[in-house]
Amino acid sequence: MVNSIAIDAMGGDFGPEVTVPAALSVLETTQQLKFVLIGDQDQIHQHLKKAGPSSSSRIEVYHTSEVVEMDDPPVHALRRKKNSSLRVAVDLVKDGTAKACVSAGNTGALMAISHFVLRTFPGIHRPAIISPIPTLSGHVSLLDLGANVDCSSQDLLQFGIMGSTFVKFTEHIENPRVALLNIGVEAIKGNQIIKKAAALFQSSELNYQGFVEGDAIFDGNVDVIVCDGFAGNVALKASEGVSKFIQHALRTEFQKNFMRKISGLIATPVMKGVKARIDPRVYNGAALIGLQGTVIKSHGGADQLAFSYALRKALVEIINDVPSHINNRVSATAEVTA
Amino acid sequence: MVNSIAIDAMGGDFGPEVTVPAALSVLETTQQLKFVLIGDQDQIHQHLKKAGPSSSSRIEVYHTSEVVEMDDPPVHALRRKKNSSLRVAVDLVKDGTAKACVSAGNTGALMAISHFVLRTFPGIHRPAIISPIPTLSGHVSLLDLGANVDCSSQDLLQFGIMGSTFVKFTEHIENPRVALLNIGVEAIKGNQIIKKAAALFQSSELNYQGFVEGDAIFDGNVDVIVCDGFAGNVALKASEGVSKFIQHALRTEFQKNFMRKISGLIATPVMKGVKARIDPRVYNGAALIGLQGTVIKSHGGADQLAFSYALRKALVEIINDVPSHINNRVSATAEVTA
Repeated sequence: MVNSIAIDAMGGDFGPEVTVPAALSVLETTQQLKFVLIGDQDQIHQHLKKAGPSSSSRIEVYHTSEVVEMDDPPVHALRRKKNSSLRVAVDLVKDGTAKACVSAGNTGALMAISHFVLRTFPGIHRPAIISPIPTLSGHVSLLDLGANVDCSSQDLLQFGIMGSTFVKFTEHIENPRVALLNIGVEAIKGNQIIKKAAALFQSSELNYQGFVEGDAIFDGNVDVIVCDGFAGNVALKASEGVSKFIQHALRTEFQKNFMRKISGLIATPVMKGVKARIDPRVYNGAALIGLQGTVIKSHGGADQLAFSYALRKALVEIINDVPSHINNRVSATAEVTA
Repeated sequence: MVNSIAIDAMGGDFGPEVTVPAALSVLETTQQLKFVLIGDQDQIHQHLKKAGPSSSSRIEVYHTSEVVEMDDPPVHALRRKKNSSLRVAVDLVKDGTAKACVSAGNTGALMAISHFVLRTFPGIHRPAIISPIPTLSGHVSLLDLGANVDCSSQDLLQFGIMGSTFVKFTEHIENPRVALLNIGVEAIKGNQIIKKAAALFQSSELNYQGFVEGDAIFDGNVDVIVCDGFAGNVALKASEGVSKFIQHALRTEFQKNFMRKISGLIATPVMKGVKARIDPRVYNGAALIGLQGTVIKSHGGADQLAFSYALRKALVEIINDVPSHINNRVSATAEVTA
C-alpha cells in the first residue's frame, strides 16, 4: 500500500527551495510512498525539474496561493487562511487523501489548525509537541515543547501516557522509562502541580523513574521526559543556545593565530565527529500528538537534510500507526480510572 | 574599615577542605577583609595550618558541631538546626558581626533560614536568586533561579527591579537592559502571567527590551533576564547539562584513535581557551537578593577556585552596599505606584 504524505511546500524560512528537494531525496530511497506538495505551483515545479521519472510519478502538486506567515497569530491563520498551504496540508489528512502532513511553518498556527481540523481523540484534553534530543547514550524524547503553557497535573500525566506510547511504537522500546522535569530530585521540590503529577505518575502504569533536573536531561537515563510547554520550550531553546555558543567559542579559539588555525585543520575530523553527535538536523521533526492524525512540525530554519528527517518521521508514525495506539492507550487508561 | 564575611565552612560537597583554603587565598590578595569560619574547629584548624601570619590574624573560628545536610528539608533545617554552621553564618549577618555570609550548603535551607532570620525589605514580596551566566559578549544575570516556583506578574516586575539594581551597582552599568524570558518573542506568546508582566515592565522605569527566548539567553544582548524560579532553574541546569555533554563529546572524539589523540595534544591551547570562556567556576556565587543583608550561595560542588569567586562576590556586594540600593529602589517604585 502506498503511504501518502501532504507537505506544506511553502512553510519554513526557505519554502520550496528546501521542501521540494528534500521530498525528492526521500522518494529516491523509499518505496511505497507518495507526496502531495502544496503551495505555489510555479515555484514548486521549478524545483521539481531535477526529479527522476520514478520520483515524478509519486509527486502530486496541489496549487494554493495563500501562505501562513511566521508572525501570523494562530487565530488569524485559523480563521482567515483557509486556502493556505499549511491549512490544505492538514485538510488532506482530515479527508483521508494523506495519512500525515509535514510543515516547517508557524508552530502556533500549525497547532491551532491541526487541533481544529483533526481534533484530539476522545478523552485527550490537549495535544502536545514531542521531539527527541541527543543525550550521552542516544536520545530522549521531551514533551511538551511549547503547545501548552499552563498545564494541570492531569495534563502532565496524559502527556506521560502519550509520550510513552509514542516512544514505544516509534522506537520499539517495550516499557519506556518516563520522568518528570523538576528543579530538584527530592520529593519536596517543585510546585503543587508537579508534586501532584508525581503522585499520579507513581500510581499509573507508566514506568515512572521520578524527577530529573535540567542537567540530567542529557544523561540518557530515561526515554521520555514530561514537563509543561513553557519549561520544555525553555529547556530545548536554552540547549540550542548553549550548543551554538560553545561552537562559536571553538571557532573563535581556533582562529586566534596561525598555529591555532593549523591545529584546527588537524582537528577537523574531531570537530566533524562532535558536530555529528549534536547535529540538530538529524533530530528535526517534532510530532504533534494526541490528534486524530499525524502532524509533524519541522524547524523553520531546516535545510534539505533536516527537512528530509522530518518527512521520514512522518512515515515512521504512519507505518507504526502511532495515533491509533495513543488513542487505545488513553481510552484503556480512562476505563481503568473510571 | 575591615569588612567581615561569615563562611559556612562545612557547606558543600567538600566542606573545610575547600572553604578554608579558598578563604586563605582570598585574604592573601585582599586587604581590609576578615573571615569568620563557622563549623567543626578541629577540621577547620587542620586546613588553617598553611595560613601565613597576615592571614591568620584576619581569620576567626566559630565552633559549631551541627551541620545542615544537603537533603534536609528546608523547614527541618530552619526549625531543628539552630546551631548549624549554615544558621550561625546567617545569624552573624543579622547581629552585625558579619556584613555578608557565604554557603555552599543546601540551597532551600539557606533561602528559608536567610528569609526567616534576615527578612526582606518592606515592600519586597519574596527574595530571589540571581547569578550571571556566560554569553557571546560577556555575561547576563538571570533571576529567579529556583527560589520561587510560582510567581505573579508583580513578583516578576519586582525581580526585574531588584535584578536591574543589583547589576547597576555590582557591575556599574548605568541603565541595565532587562528582558523577560518567554517561549517566543511575539507579544501573543506565553501565559497570562508573562503577558501581564510584560505590560508592567513596559510601563515601569526599567530599560525593558521585551521577550527573549531560551536560545537568546546566550546572545549577550541584554544585562538582566527575568523569569520564575522553575523556568530559570531549568534554563540554568539544562545549559550546564549541554555544556558537559559537548565537552564529553569532544573528549570522546579526541580519544578515538592515535592520530586524534595527537591532534588533541596540538589543540590543547584551544580547548583551554574554550573551557575558560565557559568555566562555571568564575561565575560561581549566586546572590540571594531582596533580603536585609548579603547572602551568597556557592555551588555545592565548588572547588577552591570556584569558592573563592563566591567569596569575592560577597565582598563586591558589601563594598557597593547592594542591599540598601535594592531597598531604596523598591521603596521609590512603591511610592510612585502608590
